[in-house]
Amino acid sequence: MRNIFIVCALLACNLFMNAQESEKYPLGDYTELTDTKPHDDAATWDKLGTPTQLSWGSTDVRYPKLSIPDVRKTNRWRTKAWKGERVNAQAVLWTKTGVKEAQVSVSDLRNGSHVIPASAISAHFVRYVMTDELNKDRKGGCGVRENKAEWDSSLVADVLDIVKVRDIQARATQPIWTQVRVPASAPAGTYKGILTVSGKDLESMELRIEVDVTNRVLPAPKEWAFHLDLWQNPYAVARYYQVPLWSEAHFEAMRPIMRMLADAGQKSITTSIMHKPWNGQTEDHFDSMVTRVKKIDGTWQYDYAVFDKWVEFMMNEIGIDQMISCYTMIPWKLSFDYYDEATNRVLFVDTKPGEAAYADYWGSFLKDFARHLKEKGWFEKTAISMDERPMEAMREAIKVIKQADPAFKITLAGNYHPEIQQDLYYLSIPYGHLFPADVKAERERKGQISTMYTCCAEAFPNTFTFSDPAEAAWTVLHALAAGYDGYLRWAVNSWTADPLRDSRFRTWAAGDTYSIYPGPRSSIRFERLVEGLQDCEKIRVLREEFEAKGAQGKLKRLNKAVAQCTPEGLAETQRSASEMVNELHSLLNNL
Amino acid sequence: MRNIFIVCALLACNLFMNAQESEKYPLGDYTELTDTKPHDDAATWDKLGTPTQLSWGSTDVRYPKLSIPDVRKTNRWRTKAWKGERVNAQAVLWTKTGVKEAQVSVSDLRNGSHVIPASAISAHFVRYVMTDELNKDRKGGCGVRENKAEWDSSLVADVLDIVKVRDIQARATQPIWTQVRVPASAPAGTYKGILTVSGKDLESMELRIEVDVTNRVLPAPKEWAFHLDLWQNPYAVARYYQVPLWSEAHFEAMRPIMRMLADAGQKSITTSIMHKPWNGQTEDHFDSMVTRVKKIDGTWQYDYAVFDKWVEFMMNEIGIDQMISCYTMIPWKLSFDYYDEATNRVLFVDTKPGEAAYADYWGSFLKDFARHLKEKGWFEKTAISMDERPMEAMREAIKVIKQADPAFKITLAGNYHPEIQQDLYYLSIPYGHLFPADVKAERERKGQISTMYTCCAEAFPNTFTFSDPAEAAWTVLHALAAGYDGYLRWAVNSWTADPLRDSRFRTWAAGDTYSIYPGPRSSIRFERLVEGLQDCEKIRVLREEFEAKGAQGKLKRLNKAVAQCTPEGLAETQRSASEMVNELHSLLNNL
Repeated sequence: MRNIFIVCALLACNLFMNAQESEKYPLGDYTELTDTKPHDDAATWDKLGTPTQLSWGSTDVRYPKLSIPDVRKTNRWRTKAWKGERVNAQAVLWTKTGVKEAQVSVSDLRNGSHVIPASAISAHFVRYVMTDELNKDRKGGCGVRENKAEWDSSLVADVLDIVKVRDIQARATQPIWTQVRVPASAPAGTYKGILTVSGKDLESMELRIEVDVTNRVLPAPKEWAFHLDLWQNPYAVARYYQVPLWSEAHFEAMRPIMRMLADAGQKSITTSIMHKPWNGQTEDHFDSMVTRVKKIDGTWQYDYAVFDKWVEFMMNEIGIDQMISCYTMIPWKLSFDYYDEATNRVLFVDTKPGEAAYADYWGSFLKDFARHLKEKGWFEKTAISMDERPMEAMREAIKVIKQADPAFKITLAGNYHPEIQQDLYYLSIPYGHLFPADVKAERERKGQISTMYTCCAEAFPNTFTFSDPAEAAWTVLHALAAGYDGYLRWAVNSWTADPLRDSRFRTWAAGDTYSIYPGPRSSIRFERLVEGLQDCEKIRVLREEFEAKGAQGKLKRLNKAVAQCTPEGLAETQRSASEMVNELHSLLNNL
Repeated sequence: MRNIFIVCALLACNLFMNAQESEKYPLGDYTELTDTKPHDDAATWDKLGTPTQLSWGSTDVRYPKLSIPDVRKTNRWRTKAWKGERVNAQAVLWTKTGVKEAQVSVSDLRNGSHVIPASAISAHFVRYVMTDELNKDRKGGCGVRENKAEWDSSLVADVLDIVKVRDIQARATQPIWTQVRVPASAPAGTYKGILTVSGKDLESMELRIEVDVTNRVLPAPKEWAFHLDLWQNPYAVARYYQVPLWSEAHFEAMRPIMRMLADAGQKSITTSIMHKPWNGQTEDHFDSMVTRVKKIDGTWQYDYAVFDKWVEFMMNEIGIDQMISCYTMIPWKLSFDYYDEATNRVLFVDTKPGEAAYADYWGSFLKDFARHLKEKGWFEKTAISMDERPMEAMREAIKVIKQADPAFKITLAGNYHPEIQQDLYYLSIPYGHLFPADVKAERERKGQISTMYTCCAEAFPNTFTFSDPAEAAWTVLHALAAGYDGYLRWAVNSWTADPLRDSRFRTWAAGDTYSIYPGPRSSIRFERLVEGLQDCEKIRVLREEFEAKGAQGKLKRLNKAVAQCTPEGLAETQRSASEMVNELHSLLNNL
């Protein structure tokens, strides 16, 4: 086993390796967990005339792994797209005999002499991950789930693999996620090409791709107005990739992951300014990115090497540079770390807002932090972030912040509180909660950001691994429809112990803690989220255009369709989230 | 209880407080553990004619607590003393009725118009501490003693209390340790005075003191030639006094303890340059007095705030300034601490001499440490200290030290190794091991220090709490007699969990880890050690004097007596250690 690995590493052939179940943190191929759910039996599979079949399917469906997929066979995918847009389709292959060394290739897409090159098109084997289910009352996914046996688990299609050649087992379905990144410079017109599936002892099968590029241009993700805030977890990356924290290898591993976020229009850098800002609730707890030393004379000394390196990396190498969120001054466990020079240990002060020790610990830090941030030119972008705590505690924390520097920006992810909302530069409130219209307008006027978040609490909409794929898009379209400035989710890569194979966690419904997989591998959830984010930006562009042109009819049609993206709209129109999302998507391409 | 304490603190009356058994770390009075050994019964006590009696006794005896002491009653203590010398006597009080609020006072000692003031005389109630015994084979006291029930325990007189007023129980013996510090300026002659014991409902009892001050002057302890090296443990002090490490309160607590050492001619400052240099073998482990930070770029950063404060305190406030011993580069557990900036944790490098990681960890530190020491003007006084390890490891460590700075001094407390002895500025070898005469002479010529040590290994001589008091003096007189430059003991205040009441420890025979008690309180062992140290210096002075004067007869008598301070001398002269020590002491006053 060790020899095989060494040889393969030398030959860079690990992608061809048989998956090793013994590998704890696979980066190449891997073996999925066993699908124990009822599925088509051998007799049903054996009735298939053509042993291996291929068709375009739908991006709304997580095709079961061991049953013949329910698709209306079609070999042409036709879609419209804006210049600069990413468009997705899902092909499905199913086989009663299995396919050895299956692989997918795509041709250039051609429109006369114009070309969308094959390099702008990607095809991913969709992989299956273990998921669970909503709480028994179907009202959400919060709460502890230590005993996995209590939850109905199943294998679902979600991971978009980066392994390019793999064996497909007999009597199995293999979805293939396909994405075309239309260059912003592509002239309008219809681009055509071919997706080919080949394999050992398999006659190659083809599907047609046709992308009608319209004349409109989707701005680059960095320009998107929608304030996206998916919290990053660098600590999970270090653990999964088994690299020293903040080493070059660590940044190397994070680079493609964080670029996926930048490509989704991410605005905020997640930083932790204390040990376990969320009490270590994720598989890999966050630690302090600031070194705090308590000197023997009782004074504090700070070092920002980790904070600076992470922020500089995100800003300069990744391009996420609008906001630095610093978690947190009011953690759930009010215990604050420092390296104690006297005892040569990391110790903790147990104190709470309102106490002198709290004001000393934070006041001293925030003054120095403000000085440092100003030196780096980051002060205006940085926000001291709080989690929901009792009002009195939040007020005391705000007092300490303002005392350190009245100009410090402050954020809260929590409930809407009229008492403190004016102090919050950035306020993200739960799905279903609303800002009073006058407050929202006033906040906008003052340049304050007002968003919504979802977490474990929502049965719908959500991005659990068992959630309907379209919910990811619907969520952000809803955020726009309901007048929020953006969307926050508390975890995008807080990986479970074995994230590629098992998305279940010791708390919350499966998939709650991440939608980007190691590799990095995207997911059906993440790509549908990006689709929604693109449509949000398209709505913004169209509104601007229609308003500028005075195209009231189109504006009205657009706004009416957008306004339906609410729970009430779903009920009223009797549409599913996927129908609503797809119709709106189509409208945005045809207005 | 709290109220009592507060009132007493306000009135500075805590010395009068009833001992509180619930007090974990008593600083005032306290209740001794129960003496469970056979002792004189009530009938025997009741036969006493005079209910409470007082006499001078012997400093060689640990008088049992619950039996009538075996003393030839005498009310006059007469002794010779050099100017500047401390002389000790032990009085014994025994009572069948008990004495409430017993206290001891001393008068000035008068010689015509010359006075040794009462302030130069101290009297201490001798307190009883739990001890155990030698190993079952009587060969020493090494090894683990987790199960106290396996060892024969008893209460022994050792602690010299600082509580001045206390109740003496009925049918009990209360020794009173008495010390006269003869001023260096006192004119020769016989000084006389009175020691008085009084108590509630007790007619005061008196004992006479007569000190014949000779014309010779004992140099101040700082000038003593004998190289005394008793390792200090600041961590034990912080724990017992419940004060933050390296705080002003901590130094306040250490000041009188360390002054006792300075007064004994202590030469070395014990410093720890890593976490647990001795694998945490004491109740309070040593931690690193150096802050080592591993930066995320892999470089090391050092801070010497603790080291500097401790060394400056010892040098400037205490006057111990000849040597700074830095423990250790080769600990028993080869695991080396640092604060890791990346993970915000104290981490450990597991590496051993000869490995690149070892050379990196130590080489980088030693270079910076040398720079720092030179800046402080301490480089010439500082020695990197090693414990006994395999030869190859010691050689590799020496190589790393020499590479960092060829002029670095190096010490070893361990066996004599001809292969490396020339590299060792300071080498302390076990009792009974000898330096070859030519090597010792060569080392002397080169200014290298060669001493001996005792630890748990010696059944005799030792300073366990059950050791004969005179052994403490005999040990250092032996060191001188056998041609060593001094004496090392690895612990002088590494206190047990409850050091005033129980000297037993989880390893080694009781008392191995300390001879100074919290308070600070001296001990019979410590005072007898100082007596030996004084006599060592007196021997040096007399030799110099006799050589200068050509007083060959006296020199010969002196050297003959000194030379007997060996195990062979004891056997040959058929004397006990106390007899030998006392005779030599007497000779030094009469030559």
